Amino acid sequence: MIPPHSLAPLVHGGDLDAARKLFPGAPEPFLDLSTAVNPHPYPIPEVWPEQFAHLPDAESLNLLTGYAATAYAAPSEANVVPAPGSQILMTLLAGLVSPGHAAILGPTYAEHARVAALAGHEVTTVKELAPLGDADLAIVVNPNNPDGRICGKHELLRIAEQQRARGGLLIVDEAFMDAGPRGESLGLHVEDAHVVVLRSFGKFFGLAGLRLSFALAATELAARLRASLGPWPISGPALTIGKAALWDWDWIDETRMSLGHAAVRLKKLLADAGLEIVGYTELFHLVRSPDAQQIFERLGRAGIFVRRFEQEPEWLRFGLPGAEAQWLRLETALRA
Amino acid sequence: MIPPHSLAPLVHGGDLDAARKLFPGAPEPFLDLSTAVNPHPYPIPEVWPEQFAHLPDAESLNLLTGYAATAYAAPSEANVVPAPGSQILMTLLAGLVSPGHAAILGPTYAEHARVAALAGHEVTTVKELAPLGDADLAIVVNPNNPDGRICGKHELLRIAEQQRARGGLLIVDEAFMDAGPRGESLGLHVEDAHVVVLRSFGKFFGLAGLRLSFALAATELAARLRASLGPWPISGPALTIGKAALWDWDWIDETRMSLGHAAVRLKKLLADAGLEIVGYTELFHLVRSPDAQQIFERLGRAGIFVRRFEQEPEWLRFGLPGAEAQWLRLETALRA
Repeated sequence: MIPPHSLAPLVHGGDLDAARKLFPGAPEPFLDLSTAVNPHPYPIPEVWPEQFAHLPDAESLNLLTGYAATAYAAPSEANVVPAPGSQILMTLLAGLVSPGHAAILGPTYAEHARVAALAGHEVTTVKELAPLGDADLAIVVNPNNPDGRICGKHELLRIAEQQRARGGLLIVDEAFMDAGPRGESLGLHVEDAHVVVLRSFGKFFGLAGLRLSFALAATELAARLRASLGPWPISGPALTIGKAALWDWDWIDETRMSLGHAAVRLKKLLADAGLEIVGYTELFHLVRSPDAQQIFERLGRAGIFVRRFEQEPEWLRFGLPGAEAQWLRLETALRA
Repeated sequence: MIPPHSLAPLVHGGDLDAARKLFPGAPEPFLDLSTAVNPHPYPIPEVWPEQFAHLPDAESLNLLTGYAATAYAAPSEANVVPAPGSQILMTLLAGLVSPGHAAILGPTYAEHARVAALAGHEVTTVKELAPLGDADLAIVVNPNNPDGRICGKHELLRIAEQQRARGGLLIVDEAFMDAGPRGESLGLHVEDAHVVVLRSFGKFFGLAGLRLSFALAATELAARLRASLGPWPISGPALTIGKAALWDWDWIDETRMSLGHAAVRLKKLLADAGLEIVGYTELFHLVRSPDAQQIFERLGRAGIFVRRFEQEPEWLRFGLPGAEAQWLRLETALRA
C-alpha cells in the first residue's frame, strides 16, 4: 500500500561521507557547498550541562514560542508549534489529511513527495500553481529549493481559499524565507486560511544540527500538532539557543544583509566561470551547464562538494562559502 | 472526534516553574525529585560547535544505531530506530494501528493513554495482562512507572503472540529497563513477535534534555518508522553523546551498580520516615501515606519537589537525590 520508494532514503546535500567515497584522494578538509546552510552560524551561547540533563521546562518553551511568533510574524504564540526539525511536521501534517491527491509545485525538495506518498497520498508534481487548488493536500516551497522561484502571497492565498472551500490543506515550506522576501510569507494568515507554514531555524541561523523548526498553523491545528509532539518536543540546547537567537534582532538584521552581499558575490563568481544561473536564494545558487557532471567531478577532486540532481544532470547547486580562503578555493577550482 | 483531554497537556514531573509557584518562599535551589532521571549524568564528551552547525551525517547515525542494537540487545541494527524522544515514537506507532481498542496496563505513565486517544483509539486501562491480548493496541510499561511492577518476558510474549494472531500490536515501554531486570526485555524478540520496544536514553544516562530514544521493532516496521522520522531524526549532540555513552560499558556497569546502591539507600530513608513502599525501580520509589499531601507540602516548603498523583492522593514518588548534601536535605526534611 505504501509506495516502496517512500521508505528508501533520498539523496540529500551534506553527506560528506559520500563525498569522501566518491573522491578518495581529495584534499581535506572538504569544503561542503552541497547544503544550503548559512556558513556563519549564530554564535552559540554557553550551553550548560544541565540543559542536557533536565527535561526542557514548559515556561522556557512558552517563551521560545512567543519569540518565534514575533520573529516569524505569526498572529499569536497559539499559532506556533516548535518541533525537532521540519521533517516530523511534514509527516504529521500529511497524516492529518485523509489519503487523497497531493499536488506539489515542483521540481522541489524531494522529501515532501516522499512523505506525502508515505502517508498514503497519490502524489503529482505540478509546474504551475493553479492545479494546487484541486488537490486534497497542496505543497509549495517558497522560495523554492533548488530554483529559488518565489510565489506571491496573494496567489498562494487564493489556493488556500480553494483549500478552505474543499476542506483541504495548503502547506507552504518557508525554509528559505528568513533571508528572502519576507513580505510574501503566509505566517500572518494561518489563522484564517487553510494554510500551514513551515519555518526552519537551522538554515538561516547556520545550526542545522540543532534540529529546530516551527509550524505556524490555525490555533486548533497547532494544538493538535503540539499534542502529537508531546510535552518535550525539542532538546534543552535547542530551547536555549533558539530563545537567544530568535530574539537577537541585531544579528538577524546584519545576517540578512551579509547573506545578501555573499549571494551577489557567489552569483558573480559563478557567472564569471561561464555558468548559467537558473535561480537562487540568499543561501544557494542553482546553475545549468552541459558540463555540469565534469564540473562536479573537477570540484570534487579539489575537495569541494556541491549538490547535483539525478533528474536534472545539467544542474548544480552551490551553497555559500564562509571564510575568505573558501571563496578563493572555489574560485580557483572553477577556473582550473 | 478527538477526545479533548488528549489535546490538553498532562501534569508531569520536572516542572520546577510549577514548584516555584506552589512554594514561593522555598529555599533555592530546589531539589527536584519529581522526575526519575539519574542525578549523575554521563560525563558529556566535548560537543563541538560544528555538531550544532552541520546536519547529522548518515554514517554516524548508522554507527549509533549499531551501538544501540548491542546495548539494547536488539536482533540487528535494522531493528533499531533512533528518535528525538519516546513521545514521537508513541504518536507514530499509535497512528499506524487502525483506530480500535487500545488497552493499557495501569495505572501507568499517562502519556500512553493520551497519545492512543489522540490517534482515535478507544482507551481502556486494565489491571491485569490477560485482557491485553484482545486489544488492537496493547501497551505495557515494564518495569512500570510509577509502581515498579515487572511483567515477565514469557507472559508478555504470550500477549505478543495473541497480537500476531489478530494483527494487532504490543508496545512495551522499557524506559526503566537499563538499571532493571534486563533479562525481561523483549528487545531480542522484536523481529518475530508483534511487539515494539521503546528504550529511553535520557533516564539512565541522566540526559533527559538531550531528547534521544529508540524503538526496537521488526525490520519492516522499523523501516516505516525511520521513513516517517526522515533523514535527520536526532540532533548532532544527541548523535555524538549517544555514540560515546552507549559504547561505554565501564560507565554503564558502574552506573547499574551505583543506582542499585542508591535505590537501597532511598528505600531505607523512606521506610525510616514511616512511609510505606508501594513499589520501586532503581530510579524512583513510590510510597503510600494517608499524610501524603501534607508531606508534599512540607517537602515543598523545604525546597524539595516530589511527584504527586491527582488520581491517587495517598501516593508520592521520589526520584534519587544526587550529591550527599541532597540526601541529607531530604532526610532532614522528612524528619521535620
